[in-house]
Amino acid sequence: MSSQAEHPTLLIPGPIEFDDAVLGSMSHFSQSHVGPPFVATFGETLTMLRKLLQTSDPASQPFIISGSGTLGWDLVAANLAERGEEVLVLHTGYFADSFADCFETYGVKATQLKASIGDRPQLPDIEKALKEKKYKLLTVTHVDTSTGVLSEIKALSELVHRVSPETLVVVDGVCSVGCEEICFDEWKIDAVLTASQKAIGCPPGLSISMYSGRAMEVFKTRKTPPASYFASLKNWLPSMIHYYPFMPHHANEVAVMQNYEAKKPSYFATPPTQLINALHTALTQILSGSLNERFAAHREASQRIKKTVTSYGLKQLAEKPENQANGMTAMYLPNDLKAPEILPNILKRGVIFAGGLHKEIAARYIRFGHMGVSVTDPKRDDIEKALKVLKEGLGDAGYKAE
Amino acid sequence: MSSQAEHPTLLIPGPIEFDDAVLGSMSHFSQSHVGPPFVATFGETLTMLRKLLQTSDPASQPFIISGSGTLGWDLVAANLAERGEEVLVLHTGYFADSFADCFETYGVKATQLKASIGDRPQLPDIEKALKEKKYKLLTVTHVDTSTGVLSEIKALSELVHRVSPETLVVVDGVCSVGCEEICFDEWKIDAVLTASQKAIGCPPGLSISMYSGRAMEVFKTRKTPPASYFASLKNWLPSMIHYYPFMPHHANEVAVMQNYEAKKPSYFATPPTQLINALHTALTQILSGSLNERFAAHREASQRIKKTVTSYGLKQLAEKPENQANGMTAMYLPNDLKAPEILPNILKRGVIFAGGLHKEIAARYIRFGHMGVSVTDPKRDDIEKALKVLKEGLGDAGYKAE
Repeated sequence: MSSQAEHPTLLIPGPIEFDDAVLGSMSHFSQSHVGPPFVATFGETLTMLRKLLQTSDPASQPFIISGSGTLGWDLVAANLAERGEEVLVLHTGYFADSFADCFETYGVKATQLKASIGDRPQLPDIEKALKEKKYKLLTVTHVDTSTGVLSEIKALSELVHRVSPETLVVVDGVCSVGCEEICFDEWKIDAVLTASQKAIGCPPGLSISMYSGRAMEVFKTRKTPPASYFASLKNWLPSMIHYYPFMPHHANEVAVMQNYEAKKPSYFATPPTQLINALHTALTQILSGSLNERFAAHREASQRIKKTVTSYGLKQLAEKPENQANGMTAMYLPNDLKAPEILPNILKRGVIFAGGLHKEIAARYIRFGHMGVSVTDPKRDDIEKALKVLKEGLGDAGYKAE
Repeated sequence: MSSQAEHPTLLIPGPIEFDDAVLGSMSHFSQSHVGPPFVATFGETLTMLRKLLQTSDPASQPFIISGSGTLGWDLVAANLAERGEEVLVLHTGYFADSFADCFETYGVKATQLKASIGDRPQLPDIEKALKEKKYKLLTVTHVDTSTGVLSEIKALSELVHRVSPETLVVVDGVCSVGCEEICFDEWKIDAVLTASQKAIGCPPGLSISMYSGRAMEVFKTRKTPPASYFASLKNWLPSMIHYYPFMPHHANEVAVMQNYEAKKPSYFATPPTQLINALHTALTQILSGSLNERFAAHREASQRIKKTVTSYGLKQLAEKPENQANGMTAMYLPNDLKAPEILPNILKRGVIFAGGLHKEIAARYIRFGHMGVSVTDPKRDDIEKALKVLKEGLGDAGYKAE
């Protein structure tokens, strides 16, 4: 495909390299957003999203909305919390600060539980915090894109359900959905929010969420209306059900919605039809294989990368192995080198890495994203190439990686 | 291009048919959203947006954000108005009701000035309303996609500036930007919001806005913070300036932002890189010719269509010629025929029209979108084909169009 020809290999923690077929779907001919062919595509995409997140509970509700991953925070803050309520934000880097800002925008009081750079809040501290105050919900960044720190969701959710069972468990999975295991039902998660352009492998422009039946119940029993218009689940819910004709339990609503369409359409806003076609292709590819094998492939590639960069003498921000994400590696530069000195050396050899994003240490580290086809497609040698040019790029700056 | 092969011609009032080159840009290889090539593309796209809206005032500020057209309402409601303030919403159909809902969500009091179906509020009534109460801003739907009613912006803005000069003039241009003339500076407009998938001719997924210097000043002197996080101009502004290195007056800010990028990136949320590449292609095509000729071509096609459907015995919702949009035609079905009876006849002949969207009369009318390449590309015969199959589709239902 000519659009893919000759370009630097993009190995930042999102957007990632996209498969040819996914990019081909981006140029799908124009479709009516309310016509049967697109409705079928959208419906199948919502169904596949359930499979990716391993939820078979019919009460779970998927949402796919035009927007950045950031929009998923507004969905949570404007729909699951109300003005004056308290939420607990677990901090592992840049993205917790921003999520907390988002809550404050809607008048929700966000308490952050912080860990030092490269670490994550520990369960006993979280337990203590949950016992001190009643929180409407708790948020955790599954993988913090700014630091490469992985949080453990299963044990965390068990803790919350044991200590503060009414607190909703909200997972920011922007940099984890598609490369880290998430068992939505089994782990009793209440909301996962993510974006298209990372491990799912679809170009940016989609905010993707899954809400549990319990979360939807909390939303439906709000005392005040949702605090946003574009990010109101109330506005999006009818169209998600309308586009979702494949679950038997929705049969009644669908009948209503189909009728609704003929008379009073369930339209809220025009969905991004091409992006949803591309997401359909990406999810079809992911689900054509085993999810467990996919997660294992990411773990194996990550181990290989982390072992190699360690052999180069580079230290990760996430020092403890259990804190290390499987879809990206954030590593300090040696010898006081700065990211703006190293990244151009790597680019001229055909690979794009990302600079730092944690404001205190941004210039001192670089980030290597290893998600999606760069890891899973055996025809690609992206990872080996990247490890090689990283070594060469450091060499250009006078650092000899052994 | 295979992705374009054999599909029904989409002639709804958006999404429209897209040019091959625009669709080709949708499958652009993956790019870093903060790398120089994409920054250049985004910057040029913002510059072209100024040209499309005919603003050369350096204080005007463009915004291109991942989202539906609807998001543009949140941008206005959450940034230009504050809780408790009053706004005047001119009503020409479905979209004014929704815009008013959006204001109410943010605690802004929206007064609607309504006209009967197919008509628009008249200037003397607007003058009266503006004299009765002080409004922070007034909104007008340039073309109401639900009714095909065109509003006159120039005279309206003159009236507002004369009678209530502090009231901001906000134009919902979702169904007008790219096919109806808009002189942002000359007409003293304060905000235009639109979407990508209508007359601009780029797939859906972009919320596109232009704010005047005066509007930005109102925003910057708010007493309360913006009422949304994802839709906060405060969050988006730095990244828009960052991506906008081509205007000399921004030289200082750009220097700050470039430095910022190296140390503390100006990142707020990942822009939809493929969609912005496609928008770049679409705007390049539009600006390669004369804007006035483009608007004239839409007027001529619209006249031809309206004359032909009138000859078929169909009446438009917008009866008065001065109320009729140039990029779409909304027409009542004859003989008590209903849209669900007629649209399938038309589809089986290869054309997709839209049903009604005005809740009181949805089944009684259909909508024909005639924007973009279907009008301007001489290699296409979309319009002639559509007029022919409309006649045949009515014939199938027993109505003989002469």
